[in-house]
Amino acid sequence: MPMTAIQDRMSDNHCVGCGPDNPLGLRIKSYWVGDLETSCSFQPQPHMAAGPESILNGGIIATLVDCHAVCTAISYATRLAGGAAGQDTMFVTASLNVRYKRPTPIDRPVEVRARIVGVAERRTVLECTLSSEGTICAEATVVAAWVGAGSAVYPQRVPPPAQTLGGWKADPPAPRPLAKTA
Amino acid sequence: MPMTAIQDRMSDNHCVGCGPDNPLGLRIKSYWVGDLETSCSFQPQPHMAAGPESILNGGIIATLVDCHAVCTAISYATRLAGGAAGQDTMFVTASLNVRYKRPTPIDRPVEVRARIVGVAERRTVLECTLSSEGTICAEATVVAAWVGAGSAVYPQRVPPPAQTLGGWKADPPAPRPLAKTA
Repeated sequence: MPMTAIQDRMSDNHCVGCGPDNPLGLRIKSYWVGDLETSCSFQPQPHMAAGPESILNGGIIATLVDCHAVCTAISYATRLAGGAAGQDTMFVTASLNVRYKRPTPIDRPVEVRARIVGVAERRTVLECTLSSEGTICAEATVVAAWVGAGSAVYPQRVPPPAQTLGGWKADPPAPRPLAKTA
Repeated sequence: MPMTAIQDRMSDNHCVGCGPDNPLGLRIKSYWVGDLETSCSFQPQPHMAAGPESILNGGIIATLVDCHAVCTAISYATRLAGGAAGQDTMFVTASLNVRYKRPTPIDRPVEVRARIVGVAERRTVLECTLSSEGTICAEATVVAAWVGAGSAVYPQRVPPPAQTLGGWKADPPAPRPLAKTA
């Protein structure tokens, strides 16, 4: 696992979820834990409650998932581009679909995982989980949209992830290629 | 339009999105603007930025939509129950699906609208928009799940909204009844 967080390789990021430059934000830190998977540990604060003070708010969960997943998409594209960061590997959220499975305790860390499951010309799709002490409390699907100004760095068409990172995996499920326009 | 916000009819709500009892929260206020539709106006703060400082963060948008929609579901069930608030009309978010259409300016108010489009035994489905100066920046679907402790107040099976509020509308689209278990 790289010791530098994905967010700490980005500059000029004022995002309330993931921006190191936002002193009032959540300032999440995401790390690669596999070829296609990232992890983020976050300690909720007491004011991030749902109605009951013991439960983590669903909007905070959505924010954690959204930022962690989009940072993963940016970092993945940067890796494919050979490490050159900047506008050409910038992504935004096209859609965010969170399924809340059970209440998430607020008084202990949560772990967000994001896994790249498909890449199209201008879309990266990620499946995510948010867990508390190993129990999945929410699942999510994030579609990140590439908004790079040019095509110099990010390839016009990216092959499915496993093809770009040393061949297909021995075990299914393989990443699902997407239609050209998602 | 009632002059009392939906949230101000609830007690003991510490939610970071909609709780009047959370001094560090967004403290949104939602109002009925039609038989099946509610509205919420919210002025973003500068620290609620996406990466660029001029754009509202997607997680904040998700939080606004989520809280506004679930409060709408709670208020609707309370109306059906004859105005008796409390645990028996409590809902939580089962799923939240946000589609981001365009960047949302952070320097002016946003309006969130939620419309009840279907009701099943323990689910209320709402279609939502978030607009800036009349332009829709995000659309969302929220499924709210009833978690009332008993069935004394909330009916075991709620008819489609239009049937409960004076008959079917003259114009389509009519609310879509849902399968018994969503």
